[in-house]
Amino acid sequence: MMRDVYIVGVGQTPVGEHWDLGLRELGRSAVEDALADARIEAVDALYAGNMLGGAVNGQENVATLLADAAGLLPAEAWKVEAACASGAAAVRAAAMAVASGAQEIAVAVGVEKMTDASSAAVSAALATAADQDYESSHGLSFVSLSALLMRRYMHETEQPREAFAPFAMLAHQNAAANPRAMFREPISAEAFATCALVADPIGILDAAPVCDGAAAVVLCSKDTVRAHHKPIRISGSAVASDTISLAARPDILNLRSAGRSASRAFAAAGCNPEDIDLFEAHDAFTIITALSLEACGFAKRSDVLKRAAEGQFSRTGLLPISTFGGLKARGHPVGASGAYQIVEAVLQLRGEAGLNQVRPARRALTQSIGGHGSIAVAHVLEA
Amino acid sequence: MMRDVYIVGVGQTPVGEHWDLGLRELGRSAVEDALADARIEAVDALYAGNMLGGAVNGQENVATLLADAAGLLPAEAWKVEAACASGAAAVRAAAMAVASGAQEIAVAVGVEKMTDASSAAVSAALATAADQDYESSHGLSFVSLSALLMRRYMHETEQPREAFAPFAMLAHQNAAANPRAMFREPISAEAFATCALVADPIGILDAAPVCDGAAAVVLCSKDTVRAHHKPIRISGSAVASDTISLAARPDILNLRSAGRSASRAFAAAGCNPEDIDLFEAHDAFTIITALSLEACGFAKRSDVLKRAAEGQFSRTGLLPISTFGGLKARGHPVGASGAYQIVEAVLQLRGEAGLNQVRPARRALTQSIGGHGSIAVAHVLEA
Repeated sequence: MMRDVYIVGVGQTPVGEHWDLGLRELGRSAVEDALADARIEAVDALYAGNMLGGAVNGQENVATLLADAAGLLPAEAWKVEAACASGAAAVRAAAMAVASGAQEIAVAVGVEKMTDASSAAVSAALATAADQDYESSHGLSFVSLSALLMRRYMHETEQPREAFAPFAMLAHQNAAANPRAMFREPISAEAFATCALVADPIGILDAAPVCDGAAAVVLCSKDTVRAHHKPIRISGSAVASDTISLAARPDILNLRSAGRSASRAFAAAGCNPEDIDLFEAHDAFTIITALSLEACGFAKRSDVLKRAAEGQFSRTGLLPISTFGGLKARGHPVGASGAYQIVEAVLQLRGEAGLNQVRPARRALTQSIGGHGSIAVAHVLEA
Repeated sequence: MMRDVYIVGVGQTPVGEHWDLGLRELGRSAVEDALADARIEAVDALYAGNMLGGAVNGQENVATLLADAAGLLPAEAWKVEAACASGAAAVRAAAMAVASGAQEIAVAVGVEKMTDASSAAVSAALATAADQDYESSHGLSFVSLSALLMRRYMHETEQPREAFAPFAMLAHQNAAANPRAMFREPISAEAFATCALVADPIGILDAAPVCDGAAAVVLCSKDTVRAHHKPIRISGSAVASDTISLAARPDILNLRSAGRSASRAFAAAGCNPEDIDLFEAHDAFTIITALSLEACGFAKRSDVLKRAAEGQFSRTGLLPISTFGGLKARGHPVGASGAYQIVEAVLQLRGEAGLNQVRPARRALTQSIGGHGSIAVAHVLEA
């Protein structure tokens, strides 16, 4: 990038079923919180990450809607869509806007409103992340595609479904202390083992919930950083793609886009996996958590489940992940989740994570994945 | 911008009803043509402008789909949505990517596939550009909102519907020589006056058609421009927003976003309206053409219709507009149109516009408008 970009404000709504709030209210709330946090009143641009506005809410033009609602007219405003990685891609867009000199101050907001539609409609809408011609039109849902990955993983590693329990348990454990999390109750290994199956072998406790929420970050160049800010630098930012159809990949268990986006972000930041203090992972399903850890170079297939069972990814472990509960327990409003990850990493790096604080917290990786790894967005953030 | 950005390749599909082609095939075709034109085989990033994938095609994650189809993996890939200005906003995103140094070579592609759904479904999908809470959910369609603008304009200027005929006639006249245009037959003032009304006072010949198409441009920095390229510099690029709901504007006939985006682009390019040799206008409806010309400083409300009648906006007039037929007659595949405008302006500036060539053609303005002016994207291009 031609110049450094800093995050100087963060905001987020609680994640949950917000029956009284729409896209407009959720997005505005997060944007206003982020601006208040930065003590900034006007921005040059707003980039909105959102996936389901067209398929579920009857609302496109979402960025303009939010710029209007938040009193930011006539700011530049457009929406970024990268399936479940939309929120992270919006932060990427905002970073490019500032780094290019096109804008001085930009806000990126991820927003999703999923609970206004039937569960069948949401399921169909989520499947728009997959290949319409070769996957979703044949009846494959987003969960069932994940189930294919998990079944294959269990086959290759000869591990039972129960071996994935630690990922779900640590997410719920971390969410317990996060007032904005959707699920704040710890879960037991037994509950995980006996939960209802959604798409065998994926159970309800392997999967992130359908929910609503919005998260926002304010970005600017060094010239705009003020004394009251606790600026967090974006030292690495990268996006990589892979085939949209799972069948087209030589090894469906190798999330190549996750690996490439992470290694590119590490290279930009001049660091290695060992230098990362916390990892906000895309734990939409327990299988995706395992595959992400492997792809990013944090673990090997032979030992990732064992290390999870040993607590190495818990808040006090070697590499804390999903530190505020992750997609699994904080919740996964799809187009917003990538922005939540970045908000949470910023709070950690500022030392403002409260009961969720991990130590040390000098350098974080966030990674948001869309369409079973057809797209991945990675950011390295530094205090 | 921190460094200059050049367009070194353009590609486009014919616009029409492509019953045998989907988003994947349309987008791939335009991208491959643009890369061939630039004699470039790989790019670092693909930004896709698309509006209706979620609402009409059951396909989000469109950018990854196209990067995959065009053999561009593992390029960065995400979709940009700004209602009917999506294609132009994707070019804006690509320009920021290159200007920021994040990427060296990027392709921006606008793509839309509208003819696979019923006319009622397309009408509902287009209304997602308007305010879902305060406009579209009450039955206002995109055409009927435009009809409100046109009726108000006729009231304030005391002009009849027939006074808008020159805009539709010049578009069809220009399209006649464009092999990629959807409507290549000239229309008469009488046909315009007697055509069926879609939403009074908007007739079928005031309105751009529902259709399919894709257009793409390859962008790079000066370092990558080669001897065989005929580089066109993006000397101005700007986006501005306005209220999403028409009712919230002090004067609905003042397209403030169009005015602001144009004046910002002019300022960046160091030029004035008088310095523009051709204007690719967002002529989705004849009323929008008139309002755009006014907003950009090319005409005054008191004389824009009279000047149109005098032929000043025709190919040999003072300010040629819609030089390949515009949205009206080349066709308006909504999320692609902004990219088509830029492709066409590049052909003009290169002197490769064939029978559509205007002279002189040294500096062009393109402007794409979403949601009745809630968002506008303007680019000044120079040979």
